[in-house]
This record gives sequence, C-alpha cells and structure tokens, in this order.
Amino acid sequence: MSTASSIAATPEPPYVAVIFTSKRTLEDRGYDAVSDRMVELGSTYPGFLGIESARGADGLGITVSYWKDLESVKAWKMNQEHQRAQAAGKATWYDSYSVRIATVERAYGQP
Amino acid sequence: MSTASSIAATPEPPYVAVIFTSKRTLEDRGYDAVSDRMVELGSTYPGFLGIESARGADGLGITVSYWKDLESVKAWKMNQEHQRAQAAGKATWYDSYSVRIATVERAYGQP
Repeated sequence: MSTASSIAATPEPPYVAVIFTSKRTLEDRGYDAVSDRMVELGSTYPGFLGIESARGADGLGITVSYWKDLESVKAWKMNQEHQRAQAAGKATWYDSYSVRIATVERAYGQP
Repeated sequence: MSTASSIAATPEPPYVAVIFTSKRTLEDRGYDAVSDRMVELGSTYPGFLGIESARGADGLGITVSYWKDLESVKAWKMNQEHQRAQAAGKATWYDSYSVRIATVERAYGQP
C-alpha cells in the first residue's frame, strides 16, 4: 500500500477530503488484500487526488482520501467491488467507523 | 493519549476538521510527552470537539482534530506552548508534514 504510506501531493484547495476513521476487530481474514485492492482501484477513478493511511497498534486507523469534487466521491462510492468491501468491513473487520466528507479550504506544510 | 485513540463523538456538521499528516524522523527525544501534552492542552480550548490520531509502523501519522469553527482553530494555533511544540516538530520530529483545514459537511457511520 505504498501509495497510502506517504503524504499526498494534493493541488491547491479547494478539493474534497473523505476522512474514514475505524476501529478494527481482531478478525483479520482477507483484510489486507481487500484494503490494498481498494486503494489500487479507487486511485484509478477520475477525480482521485491522493490518499493517506495510518493504523496504530491500538487498532484505530485513519484513512483520508482526496478528491476533485463530490461527484468523484459519489462515483467511487457506487463502485460495486467497493460496495462489497464496505459490506464486509461493516460485518467483519470494523467494530466501529466514521465517514466524514469535508471541503479542504486551506493547506500548508513542509513537503 | 486515550482521548485520541478512539473515534471522536462529534456533533452534527458543519464543523471544522484540521487534518495533520506527518512523517516522523528517527529522533524520539521528548516527542511522546509533548504530543500527549498538546492533546491535553488543545482539548481544553473553547470550540474543541474531539481528536483522532493514528501512526503506523512505517512512520506516517494522521491526527484529525475537530473544532466548532475557524476562530477556535486560530485561537489554539496562537497558543504559545503549542507554537513552541510546532517549532520543535519542524526542527526535530518531522521529516515532512501537511496541514489541511476543511469544513465537514456530512458525516455518518457505525458508532
């Protein structure tokens, strides 16, 4: 998942951030392969700008994906393989999760 | 840092998310104590709604703090102890980092 293990090189705002926070169960079956596949597949979608992902030893994970606009987010959300992965996540891999959709208005840093 | 190791119970949008992504150096001196102290101090600020934080074994970390409005974010940014911690972070603890300020417009999940 190398595309998700560094800071995303996003363009000037505004753009959309999807903040996905999750608490994992102890059930590991198939998780890593599906997670990697979702990064790979999602990043081929039009409007995809980048992704950042981290999970700590305590099981809390945060993945932020960046998109050109809300239409791009909706199109990716409707992908059938993605929807199957989401269903498996809810049923098996995540104790709890939160999705927040936000408009990035300002960004700065030290690349 | 227990307040940052679970999913934040934020109110109905809109509210502000500060997405802080960072890549750590190998220099550990004092980092954990300062990081914990910043969560403790920041959470006493008016308008603070919650915080989520994760850092993976590869060194990439994501911390998202949630705030009532931009004024709350600005007040916390101006705190002198916070500014000293930011300077130490740039000089010592972070290879690279990114700050993105966003307005959360929609949120859902499974608490």
